[in-house]
Amino acid sequence: MTLQFPQASEDKRALEEGEAFTPRFDANGLVTAVVTDAGDGVLLMVAHMNAEALALTIETGIAHYWSRSRGSLWKKGETSGNFQHVVEIRTDCDQDAVWLRVNVTGHEATCHTGRRSCFYRTVGYKNGMATLSADGSAPLFDTDETYHKKS
Amino acid sequence: MTLQFPQASEDKRALEEGEAFTPRFDANGLVTAVVTDAGDGVLLMVAHMNAEALALTIETGIAHYWSRSRGSLWKKGETSGNFQHVVEIRTDCDQDAVWLRVNVTGHEATCHTGRRSCFYRTVGYKNGMATLSADGSAPLFDTDETYHKKS
Repeated sequence: MTLQFPQASEDKRALEEGEAFTPRFDANGLVTAVVTDAGDGVLLMVAHMNAEALALTIETGIAHYWSRSRGSLWKKGETSGNFQHVVEIRTDCDQDAVWLRVNVTGHEATCHTGRRSCFYRTVGYKNGMATLSADGSAPLFDTDETYHKKS
Repeated sequence: MTLQFPQASEDKRALEEGEAFTPRFDANGLVTAVVTDAGDGVLLMVAHMNAEALALTIETGIAHYWSRSRGSLWKKGETSGNFQHVVEIRTDCDQDAVWLRVNVTGHEATCHTGRRSCFYRTVGYKNGMATLSADGSAPLFDTDETYHKKS
């Protein structure tokens, strides 16, 4: 019953200007998903979706991804309660990426470190070296308790 | 003279909480780059960077990418004049993606279709089919003239 996606057109104009959503999955069967907060637009995370994750996201309105590290479908928030409710999905010109604008439930945290966003460090450049500086954002939930209690 | 990046640590804590920027390039030598407007936060594009593109971006403050379709370094804006001046670079928890907040010069357009953003279509779901709707954003420059005049 899962939504199926038609094969992507090889016609550039159809891909860029057409009304058919024909995601261009890469060699691993994935598209890139960029996830921002529907409220203030902050970038929360970057992840990947296979066809099943993308279809489930569209059908249920709850973000699903493909976990490359675990090699499995990943309903974001299933452990932490921090589900992502999708307000809008967009795709880009060549349809190999999607943009999800979401509202996060639970602790309003997206990162597995407990922070609101995965992008909590800025890149600096000093004396020919690239460095990172934390922006001071703190964990919004106890990740040890949330993730380690499960066995 | 180009900035070199140290090998990424296998220690998860160093990667997530450390102060060394050690990007985790994938099997193709790329990290994902998410690009937003530094002014209003709108998502402009998603692209990829190899080590050289990332180093040049950090060193020059102008966004460079790796064009997967052309297989070459890509100084964004070289043809159109729509350069991206980098206000801030962030990386995510596992350092396999970067977030660039930029100011776009020239026509203030990022998409090769002439539009401000590559994400000009929303995904809808009707009668078991996923469809696209244009958001009405129009080209900000004459792409035929800009791209086709060059031979």
